[in-house]
Amino acid sequence: MQPTLIKALRRQPTGFTPIWIMRQAGRYLPSYRAVRQKYSFHEMVYTPDVAAEVTLQPVEQIGVDAAILFSDILVVPEALGMRLQFVEGKGPVFEEPIRRPEQVDILPFSQAAERLQPVYDAVRIIRSELGGRVPLIGFAGAPWTLAAYMIEGQGSKEFRHARAFLYAEPVVLHRLLQGLTEAIVDYLRRQVEAGAQALQIFDSWAGYLTPDQFRLFALPYLRKIAEELSDLPVPVIVFARGAAHALAELSRIGADALSIDWQTDLQWARTVTGGRVSLQGNLDPIALYAPKDVLKREVERVLQKYGAAPGHVFNLGHGILPDAPVDHVKALVDFVHELSPKYHGFETVDA
Amino acid sequence: MQPTLIKALRRQPTGFTPIWIMRQAGRYLPSYRAVRQKYSFHEMVYTPDVAAEVTLQPVEQIGVDAAILFSDILVVPEALGMRLQFVEGKGPVFEEPIRRPEQVDILPFSQAAERLQPVYDAVRIIRSELGGRVPLIGFAGAPWTLAAYMIEGQGSKEFRHARAFLYAEPVVLHRLLQGLTEAIVDYLRRQVEAGAQALQIFDSWAGYLTPDQFRLFALPYLRKIAEELSDLPVPVIVFARGAAHALAELSRIGADALSIDWQTDLQWARTVTGGRVSLQGNLDPIALYAPKDVLKREVERVLQKYGAAPGHVFNLGHGILPDAPVDHVKALVDFVHELSPKYHGFETVDA
Repeated sequence: MQPTLIKALRRQPTGFTPIWIMRQAGRYLPSYRAVRQKYSFHEMVYTPDVAAEVTLQPVEQIGVDAAILFSDILVVPEALGMRLQFVEGKGPVFEEPIRRPEQVDILPFSQAAERLQPVYDAVRIIRSELGGRVPLIGFAGAPWTLAAYMIEGQGSKEFRHARAFLYAEPVVLHRLLQGLTEAIVDYLRRQVEAGAQALQIFDSWAGYLTPDQFRLFALPYLRKIAEELSDLPVPVIVFARGAAHALAELSRIGADALSIDWQTDLQWARTVTGGRVSLQGNLDPIALYAPKDVLKREVERVLQKYGAAPGHVFNLGHGILPDAPVDHVKALVDFVHELSPKYHGFETVDA
Repeated sequence: MQPTLIKALRRQPTGFTPIWIMRQAGRYLPSYRAVRQKYSFHEMVYTPDVAAEVTLQPVEQIGVDAAILFSDILVVPEALGMRLQFVEGKGPVFEEPIRRPEQVDILPFSQAAERLQPVYDAVRIIRSELGGRVPLIGFAGAPWTLAAYMIEGQGSKEFRHARAFLYAEPVVLHRLLQGLTEAIVDYLRRQVEAGAQALQIFDSWAGYLTPDQFRLFALPYLRKIAEELSDLPVPVIVFARGAAHALAELSRIGADALSIDWQTDLQWARTVTGGRVSLQGNLDPIALYAPKDVLKREVERVLQKYGAAPGHVFNLGHGILPDAPVDHVKALVDFVHELSPKYHGFETVDA
């Protein structure tokens, strides 16, 4: 029998709305912070046992309906030979950001995925330890988002360097995006071979492109990835944050589901995507700080926005924040399980 | 004769597309940095002669078609008695952010505007020194944006406190927004009495609201401000950044023009606003870092997106960055003046 999450991602009937939470294996959990005291973030990502341990924590403690691999989108640039420094309070910083065309031409795109064996090992361990309780989601960063980070060198409010590079060197940028697409496809296929049962592609910085730029520098590569993965037996979710303007087009690239950010009205998203894909989301992460009765009302609002139809996976509309109160996170999962069944079951009437 | 900017804001025919630049009186200008060396930002804002001097710099050096008062949206909270500290590298910080309902009830909303005499004095000086060369735009922060800042206490990536306050204390937030609306209307009317010839309302943090929240906590107050100012002989521009989802509704609140952020397609914005308002924008500020031929192509793209019709004011889709190259800023203004006439003049065929 298919897990509820997988059915929902395929727009098949389910008895309730499954939920997982972006960045659910994270700092808001005391047990995560305990592990983090013993290892650096980098060590956690590359030590399969440790990555597996924190991946399983929210499944066991919060009751979510899926595990998502604990990892980082920057492992692909690292596998391309770009060295990262972890600067406290600043996040990861690339020692040598990409600023010149020659730097792109030497990146070993076809060899990146094979260097990420610890990730596949973690996937195998997690699958084994999950023992079929819930499915495991694998993931990767999208080409534009990785390119933006590789050029900028670090997280940024403006992505000024990356975006100036786009204007000055569009052809080189396309070469970089093409190479990243190849590496990402290879990486995601290997995750599935190791046991990942669904895949999410994070285009976290899609909102740093104008609509025209998104159509030139992001959408074609997302489409390419979806096409290249279409023979795999796992659903593919695309999260293009800040690109609500492109939802209609994104619903036609061959992905099974789109993750919707919290700034987008979910009902509107359903309308413009026309039932071609499942939708994931999109509770405001800040609603977790609200009193529980307000949180419950907000959960109901999201369920209502999607409405009584298959194809909804509950999630936040952005990653959970490190100081989210754990009891509210548990309450969120309970509310979704308690409130969602009334939005399901109608499909059996016609069956 | 009406200045070109004012005609464009009223959707009347003009011979070319007027341009001004958000934050045009700013750090990218060496002459601004020279003044800034002598005075703190705070002193500049509250010293009429100095505020007037930097307001005039871009008119004289860059050739823009409007002056915009050099000031800060936080003068209204300051006039309400909230003390600001200026922390280097962090921007302005309120000493006592609003976190409890009682703090809202003691704010002297009806007395704020009368405390801002230095602003009106600056407006008078600027009008006198402009001598009719270009019109002067006054401005204020929108209620939600000011409330977000007052609750958060400082600029923020998440506006976590302000947004959690919205969930926990919606009634108190409405009281704060109502009071701010009153103060803002009073403040803007006094700017017009002193000589401001157009007004812009900055709802800079509109994108930190869900669409439902925007309709409850931002839109009604923007509508109220537009209504309260409708008897004044000056056009009103609303900039609700990150609220593209609400453009259709915003085009019906009684504002004369909407400023469009760079993440929104200007042609789409024209369609959804249906010719009910003028549109301002929306070049990506990062295009200023592109080679000049690319910058020129991007200017043409924005002009094309708006198309051959009255009612376009050229601007960036967000404030200019402090390190924008001055010669490219000048080139931008020249490109708009050179390329835009071919999009005008058709209306005379029917005359």
